[in-house]
Amino acid sequence: MRVAKTQKFHVLEAGRAKDGVAVIEDEADNVVLAKLRELKIAHTTYAHPEVPTVESMMEVLGDRVEGVLTKNLLLKDKKVGSFLVCVTPDRTVDMKTLPLRLGAGEKCNFRLTDCHFLGVAKGAVTPYAAINDIDNVVTVALDAELLKAKFVTTHPLRCDRSVSVSSSDLVSFLDQIGHEPKIIDFSKEVKKSSGSASSSSSAAGKKPTAPLRNKKGTKETLDRLLATKEEDFAGWYAEVISKSEMIEYGKISGCYILRPWSFGVWELIQKWFDAKIKEIGVDNCYFPMFVTKGALEAEEDHVEGFAPEVAWVTRSGQTDLTEPIAIRPTSETIMYPEFAKWLRSHRDLPLKLNQWCSVVRWEFKYPTPFLRSREFLWQEGHTAHATLEEADEMVLDILALYGYVYEELLAVPVIRGTKTEKEKFAGGLRTSTVEAYIAGSGRAIQGATSHNLGQNFAKIYDVRVESESGKLIPWQTSWGLTTRSIGVMVMVHGDNQGLVLPPRVAPIQVVIIPLVYKTCTLDDLAPLVKKVESALRGLRIRVDDRPNYSPGWKYNHWEQKGVPIRIEVGPRDMEGNQATLARRVDGVKKVVPVADLAAVVNEDLDDIHRTMFRNATAARDAKFKQVTEWADFVPALDQDCLVLTPWCGPENQRAEEDVKEKSKLEALQRAGMDAEDVRTATSLAAKTLCIPHDQPTDLPDGSTTCFFTGKPATCWCLWGRSY
Amino acid sequence: MRVAKTQKFHVLEAGRAKDGVAVIEDEADNVVLAKLRELKIAHTTYAHPEVPTVESMMEVLGDRVEGVLTKNLLLKDKKVGSFLVCVTPDRTVDMKTLPLRLGAGEKCNFRLTDCHFLGVAKGAVTPYAAINDIDNVVTVALDAELLKAKFVTTHPLRCDRSVSVSSSDLVSFLDQIGHEPKIIDFSKEVKKSSGSASSSSSAAGKKPTAPLRNKKGTKETLDRLLATKEEDFAGWYAEVISKSEMIEYGKISGCYILRPWSFGVWELIQKWFDAKIKEIGVDNCYFPMFVTKGALEAEEDHVEGFAPEVAWVTRSGQTDLTEPIAIRPTSETIMYPEFAKWLRSHRDLPLKLNQWCSVVRWEFKYPTPFLRSREFLWQEGHTAHATLEEADEMVLDILALYGYVYEELLAVPVIRGTKTEKEKFAGGLRTSTVEAYIAGSGRAIQGATSHNLGQNFAKIYDVRVESESGKLIPWQTSWGLTTRSIGVMVMVHGDNQGLVLPPRVAPIQVVIIPLVYKTCTLDDLAPLVKKVESALRGLRIRVDDRPNYSPGWKYNHWEQKGVPIRIEVGPRDMEGNQATLARRVDGVKKVVPVADLAAVVNEDLDDIHRTMFRNATAARDAKFKQVTEWADFVPALDQDCLVLTPWCGPENQRAEEDVKEKSKLEALQRAGMDAEDVRTATSLAAKTLCIPHDQPTDLPDGSTTCFFTGKPATCWCLWGRSY
Repeated sequence: MRVAKTQKFHVLEAGRAKDGVAVIEDEADNVVLAKLRELKIAHTTYAHPEVPTVESMMEVLGDRVEGVLTKNLLLKDKKVGSFLVCVTPDRTVDMKTLPLRLGAGEKCNFRLTDCHFLGVAKGAVTPYAAINDIDNVVTVALDAELLKAKFVTTHPLRCDRSVSVSSSDLVSFLDQIGHEPKIIDFSKEVKKSSGSASSSSSAAGKKPTAPLRNKKGTKETLDRLLATKEEDFAGWYAEVISKSEMIEYGKISGCYILRPWSFGVWELIQKWFDAKIKEIGVDNCYFPMFVTKGALEAEEDHVEGFAPEVAWVTRSGQTDLTEPIAIRPTSETIMYPEFAKWLRSHRDLPLKLNQWCSVVRWEFKYPTPFLRSREFLWQEGHTAHATLEEADEMVLDILALYGYVYEELLAVPVIRGTKTEKEKFAGGLRTSTVEAYIAGSGRAIQGATSHNLGQNFAKIYDVRVESESGKLIPWQTSWGLTTRSIGVMVMVHGDNQGLVLPPRVAPIQVVIIPLVYKTCTLDDLAPLVKKVESALRGLRIRVDDRPNYSPGWKYNHWEQKGVPIRIEVGPRDMEGNQATLARRVDGVKKVVPVADLAAVVNEDLDDIHRTMFRNATAARDAKFKQVTEWADFVPALDQDCLVLTPWCGPENQRAEEDVKEKSKLEALQRAGMDAEDVRTATSLAAKTLCIPHDQPTDLPDGSTTCFFTGKPATCWCLWGRSY
Repeated sequence: MRVAKTQKFHVLEAGRAKDGVAVIEDEADNVVLAKLRELKIAHTTYAHPEVPTVESMMEVLGDRVEGVLTKNLLLKDKKVGSFLVCVTPDRTVDMKTLPLRLGAGEKCNFRLTDCHFLGVAKGAVTPYAAINDIDNVVTVALDAELLKAKFVTTHPLRCDRSVSVSSSDLVSFLDQIGHEPKIIDFSKEVKKSSGSASSSSSAAGKKPTAPLRNKKGTKETLDRLLATKEEDFAGWYAEVISKSEMIEYGKISGCYILRPWSFGVWELIQKWFDAKIKEIGVDNCYFPMFVTKGALEAEEDHVEGFAPEVAWVTRSGQTDLTEPIAIRPTSETIMYPEFAKWLRSHRDLPLKLNQWCSVVRWEFKYPTPFLRSREFLWQEGHTAHATLEEADEMVLDILALYGYVYEELLAVPVIRGTKTEKEKFAGGLRTSTVEAYIAGSGRAIQGATSHNLGQNFAKIYDVRVESESGKLIPWQTSWGLTTRSIGVMVMVHGDNQGLVLPPRVAPIQVVIIPLVYKTCTLDDLAPLVKKVESALRGLRIRVDDRPNYSPGWKYNHWEQKGVPIRIEVGPRDMEGNQATLARRVDGVKKVVPVADLAAVVNEDLDDIHRTMFRNATAARDAKFKQVTEWADFVPALDQDCLVLTPWCGPENQRAEEDVKEKSKLEALQRAGMDAEDVRTATSLAAKTLCIPHDQPTDLPDGSTTCFFTGKPATCWCLWGRSY
């Protein structure tokens, strides 16, 4: 995690928003802020986008507010009671030793618990939430590290506000509301009487989880996931991508480091997709990342779509540039003026270019690794054709490849369709899309899009060719697939042990672990390991024969990283000339003779892919509803469903807006929530995902009416709450 | 080209330098500026780095000064006399029709001529140079397009000054110095009596070169190179990379578009190098392109090396960022803070990462495509090791791969060596390098470098691991290969027909051209073409059977693009079941039976590589001199030589500085040039290239003394003028 414990943050001037964060006056109706004033505790209050997880909080507030943030766990044991444990963001809390640290006894079995009785949303469970614990059933426990920081910043009952106070004032506040906190010193080692804890008595304590000793007597740590996918999806996701070594959080908010384990997935996607587009005549190239203001702003709708998120370079060294230049948010405006130079004759058509690069969109919605980051990797294809039909064909060829990437590589089912006018690419003619579904959050997500740009950009950038019948304005397409696809894959397939990788994009498909015993050394096992290795030649394999880690540690490590198949090779296997195979997806284990290994593993890899795709499809289809009446619409959304409705027309932007607004208000009403919480409300609104290409057959009888306007329906439209 | 004819540029405030360009007062000793004042012609004078070609001029001045620039050709025909033809930068002048446009008669055969009689350097041949034509032998001819621009900006006798005047004032100036200009209207079509010119009488004239008609009656243009490698190396290079479709100039000065023809070369380099580093355990990853000010500036020498060239993002949309963030000039400062998180135990070593990305260095030296651009593509490898020896081994493994890329892929010989203290990577321990030589310009060029960083960065970013003997500070390396390699390849191998591509990196290795005649259609030839194609399966081939281009056009096109082998398939070949093979490198042609084709082509591709490498090595070795006395040093440099000298020590930075300074002054003296022209002088100075790993055997007898200091020599050092 990125926040150094003693880091001192910048303070904003009152009322001046920076990157969406502003210092504000206390709101009268917030009891925490009122109490702080009443107690005359000096504090600074910030308003900002809703940040319900410590990760999102660090992203949005990280370098903009004062003080260390807190990570908060609300835990319950039936006998011992409830604890609100507040630690520094980079603290990993070992649940096994925590009871000892809290003096709660060894038998204690903490579980994450519901926060309803505190009257706040999950993300707003902070030390301040204790103010709502009127029955005083919760013990607050603070990480001693927090008290070393000068200021502590955390939410006052709502996730779109934060308040900074000095750490001593925080303790004083808790005292005054009758919740004198316990202070936990994580730097002290604690001993479990079971004897599995380290025998070292040093207090170095850099590693927060309890170290174990393997057979070689070296320390190792079994670092399992804390959060569960079912109870804390956002926390689970953050943990999975960190612990599997896919993502590291860098120093710049909203920018993430793709470590080899995720970049390896991207390379496999690249390799497949790159070969496919080359087959259909697309050439790779590289255009500069910079674009002049003039070129960027030439197309009105386009610039309106991207301008608020554009990063501007204004200075080099100590010198101001004559004119600021933008970093590409996408490259239409960089490429098409060049197309105008290159395309002279109809013989120069079609032109089909692609580049693999990063683009920058400086968004203020809170970022999520892979799904929404300020810099992300993608490919962007750009083509020009003689006719609209050819352009349409190109768009659909690419959409088919995107569908294949999701379904046949990532094992994620997608729905192919066309975006409505409201949701199409800014400046284009029409946008086709593949849409996926994340069961864990109950939300839809756009997988990749392929745009028919019509002649609009060609007209603006003066792309014209000579043809036999005079001047011709080419028809253009653009299309992009991003590293978001990796995030979707993680969210769809991961489980409470960690990542589950689809075999076709797993950087390692099979990990081979020799089981070394006293009576059976690595040398003894080596001949069999070699046999297994050569049986699997051609697959992406790794032999993990590191002497310093126990088999248990390795199992956990590779499970967390989602390797599809583990092969154990032990003494018993030597006798039988066999190996033991374990599948990550379902834990199925079997003993396989070495002679059959190649065939079995190859078949299993295929079967694992099919199983994953089947499971994901089942999870999505369970949440797919066809609805013809408005009355059934919001209830279906509330059940996390994708909703297919008869619709009066994808051009009807006004009606689409109305559905969005009305669905939001109705959802709020159903939840008994306050309409004022606009941010939550926005995420409750229904959005059109697409007009699916695969339409139910029963529509064109003429009598079906739009579920919203009651006019004759022209198509079935897919709706959902979405990312 | 990038400068629109009617574009209005920004005017600088007097005395205020922008990106190295400043408005200045006229210098008294410049006769052109004196004459302008005398004639009371309003003008603005700029000082800037030396820009001797219109391309470099556009780079440095493009968007910073007022007015359209000029491209100038000094032409001579023995009978007709000399013409100074000044056109807009984007004008392609067809030498065949130019005499007609100038009214110089059809028999006229213009050649580029020497400018010595004008008393200016080649780059300073502009309309103003006519002031030195006291015998009035030169006719000045101006492109009518120039007169449509409000202002014209060009050099007043020296390449580091430019002056803007209104276009009418330019004509008036020329009048007054007795050189009333001819105005050439390139938009008019001209007819050659030979009848090969277009019969169209329209005056659209978008295409500046005279169109021909092929058999199908469609217009086509044989667009040969204008400049020669021997007479105008910079102009030749700019033409080769444009006409071969490798490079397009974008809208941002110093940033270039890599079109598929150059990106294809890069992809082949990537493919080979990427596989090789993966074999030695390097994993690919991706770090964000942004770096905080704090991280960037943590290492003092490092920041000093890069800070002046760093591009800063200060704004997103309309919002100022709290703190400016830099775009990576290289990623040591981005990656190593993360290394500190990941490396906990000696078991985590070695760590070997690489990324393929672009970096930004906003230099003000005038940029050259591939060789020096503000954004460029590269790979950057970063590793951490337990011992110095392992780090050294890593550095040399990579250097060997770089040597292979140059010699075995690009057919460019390189000298492997170690940089002196003065020239090593800022912040590192020592730098190893591969150095190439460009015979066309007589300059050396750094090919790629591999650095042993020692423990310096690890200490700064707190990278420390636990080992059995306590804390250990890892030894680090970093290494990079850029798209500069493509520029070196073009400069070394290209000829006056265009590019010559080494077979192993040619995107197309063999182009097959069916020779269609009236009596022999494409359909007739198809079976033989198919046979040739299948014989060559596995190679990168292209069949150019476009019906609208003549074989002559195709020959020129693919020659300009440097395809190693052309195979012609015509009616005679059908009879003999054979094909005709032509080698780009030496024009050798031979008839080959289809049955032998695969073997012959494969052998020829290898032989072409060997031939290219041999030629390049011979050209370099002809300019390689061993020198032991100072007296022979500058004369050798003046002969464009790489000079190997006994040297008293690569740590002696002071002596190295002295050699640089003294060699510059002596070279100026020898050339009879003015020491004031600092920019030229800098490029005359000798630089150390490296201490070659392959040292002559006769040094360690103890008695050899340093060629400069006279102290005992410790090594042989390679010097040269360099890029």
